[in-house]
Amino acid sequence: MASPDPEQGDEFAIIAQWFAPLARQDGARGLLDDVAVLDWSGPVVLTSDTIVEGVHFLPDDPIDRIARKALRVNLSDVAAKGATPIGYLLNLAWPRARPASQIEHFAAGLAADQDAFNVTLLGGDTTSTPGPLTISITMLGRPHLANPPSRAGARSGDRLWVSGVIGDGWLGLKARLGALDGVSEPHLTSLTDHYQLPSPRLDQAEAVARLATASMDVSDGLIADCAKLAAASGVACEIAAHDVPLSAAGRAWAGADFQRLERLLTGGDDYQILIAARPDADLALSAAGWTAIGDFWEGRGMAYRLPDGRRCSVTAKAGYAHRLGNG
Amino acid sequence: MASPDPEQGDEFAIIAQWFAPLARQDGARGLLDDVAVLDWSGPVVLTSDTIVEGVHFLPDDPIDRIARKALRVNLSDVAAKGATPIGYLLNLAWPRARPASQIEHFAAGLAADQDAFNVTLLGGDTTSTPGPLTISITMLGRPHLANPPSRAGARSGDRLWVSGVIGDGWLGLKARLGALDGVSEPHLTSLTDHYQLPSPRLDQAEAVARLATASMDVSDGLIADCAKLAAASGVACEIAAHDVPLSAAGRAWAGADFQRLERLLTGGDDYQILIAARPDADLALSAAGWTAIGDFWEGRGMAYRLPDGRRCSVTAKAGYAHRLGNG
Repeated sequence: MASPDPEQGDEFAIIAQWFAPLARQDGARGLLDDVAVLDWSGPVVLTSDTIVEGVHFLPDDPIDRIARKALRVNLSDVAAKGATPIGYLLNLAWPRARPASQIEHFAAGLAADQDAFNVTLLGGDTTSTPGPLTISITMLGRPHLANPPSRAGARSGDRLWVSGVIGDGWLGLKARLGALDGVSEPHLTSLTDHYQLPSPRLDQAEAVARLATASMDVSDGLIADCAKLAAASGVACEIAAHDVPLSAAGRAWAGADFQRLERLLTGGDDYQILIAARPDADLALSAAGWTAIGDFWEGRGMAYRLPDGRRCSVTAKAGYAHRLGNG
Repeated sequence: MASPDPEQGDEFAIIAQWFAPLARQDGARGLLDDVAVLDWSGPVVLTSDTIVEGVHFLPDDPIDRIARKALRVNLSDVAAKGATPIGYLLNLAWPRARPASQIEHFAAGLAADQDAFNVTLLGGDTTSTPGPLTISITMLGRPHLANPPSRAGARSGDRLWVSGVIGDGWLGLKARLGALDGVSEPHLTSLTDHYQLPSPRLDQAEAVARLATASMDVSDGLIADCAKLAAASGVACEIAAHDVPLSAAGRAWAGADFQRLERLLTGGDDYQILIAARPDADLALSAAGWTAIGDFWEGRGMAYRLPDGRRCSVTAKAGYAHRLGNG
């Protein structure tokens, strides 16, 4: 990259020292070339997500965790499509005001998760920025089956399943902001961990490939993401709110307060997988640890039923659940 | 992408309205999914470059040109590896303070260059940022030959070739900053065009694949990039400065001032291709419009000879030519 910015003179030293050791595949050419070269045969999934300081993470989150979160939000997309991650390209815009000494810890975070998830750095770009730390990762994966599930395959009669607990990411953000009262110290720690270090459900990728008629990861809030999946599939969907799995911390926080329960279902940063599946997959999904939380019907629209029987309709608009009325 | 930022609620509307029409390939799934799915057979090159407002372009550069530059710096890397571009993923961090109405023109710029270079949008991510406009593009290409040239293949006896004029990108930046005196109006316009809209040399990709023993694009300045290629190849390189092709504007600006000539050779944003080739490629490369500007020798180090015979040595440090002495 050309740059009028003299500080960028260090780009190559930084790459050689901290990032080249992460490029553990011949095709990465040791990050010494302008491209990675892979030889590929068959289907490939490609996904790309950006995280921005002050938007998707907090400025004082530990830098190794920021790096790992950038990887994990992409790994989550790969898992949700029933694929195995292979490698990634990293685009790093590093703030001039952030100490360059943190880059070592940033790279160490990537290294830890490369080992944990068996992926390798393939290439990318490093530049300085007058703005916030901005990390874009583009990840390649190999799907377990040739045609990975889209969001659009859910059919009437399918059930809606989720791979794990909902709400901890949102609670973790609140905890980090000091806006969570009456939660015990161990719970605060586990929630913060969940916000900073989501766990991509790669353990469920094969189940997704085999059993899902539609899939996506839950990152913008369960209700909104369900609404997107239902809309893409051209079917109606209803969630039974009391069936949605919560963590011990989530249950303790929500108690019997349905407004709090709704906040958990509309918060974000869950990074679980949401799928539709035919009823004959019930046994296999239950055995694999999935929870059935709703059903798909003929028609359009998205709703959720609260434990007291109230039924709330939702628009498909992203990122929010707009309550339109009680049914 | 999850986001605590309520403005991101528009992300999906923006993608549907402006970016989905750019996804002209089934594998992009209309940008309605979390991934692109391609079926691929054979070698693929992958490259990724980020451009940042205030670093790689100016805040008041036309937004459609900013979009096109983001594409073109990546296309340039693909061309330099003797490959044909296929498609790209776009990561867009859009400043909260920049009018959303500009997104239409940003997308129009991408559309124009998609047509010009026969590529398609495959996926990506759009988010808001409290900082500068930041655009990361990851591009896929299919190499003309199985093993694209790296930077490391130059051998003693090879000649150094460049695909076109050097210095106009740097002069264009100066022109945009109003720091270029005594240059005629038509020259100012052509220089500004060159800075804002580099021309990736895809027309030369096949020649690179057939004839280059080593290659890279020239983005950080001719001298610095030659030094990198020579260092990666483990050979010494000398450029004859008076052989380096300049535009009419560049010649007019430099005149007989060798310091000015050196500035052109050390400036950036050229986006030409630099290759090493065996002498038996001389005729073919000349016929294809390439210019021989130097030679490779046994040993290490990088130097350039000025028209008056002075010889300047250069360190391999990136982005700068540090003069160490006159030989």
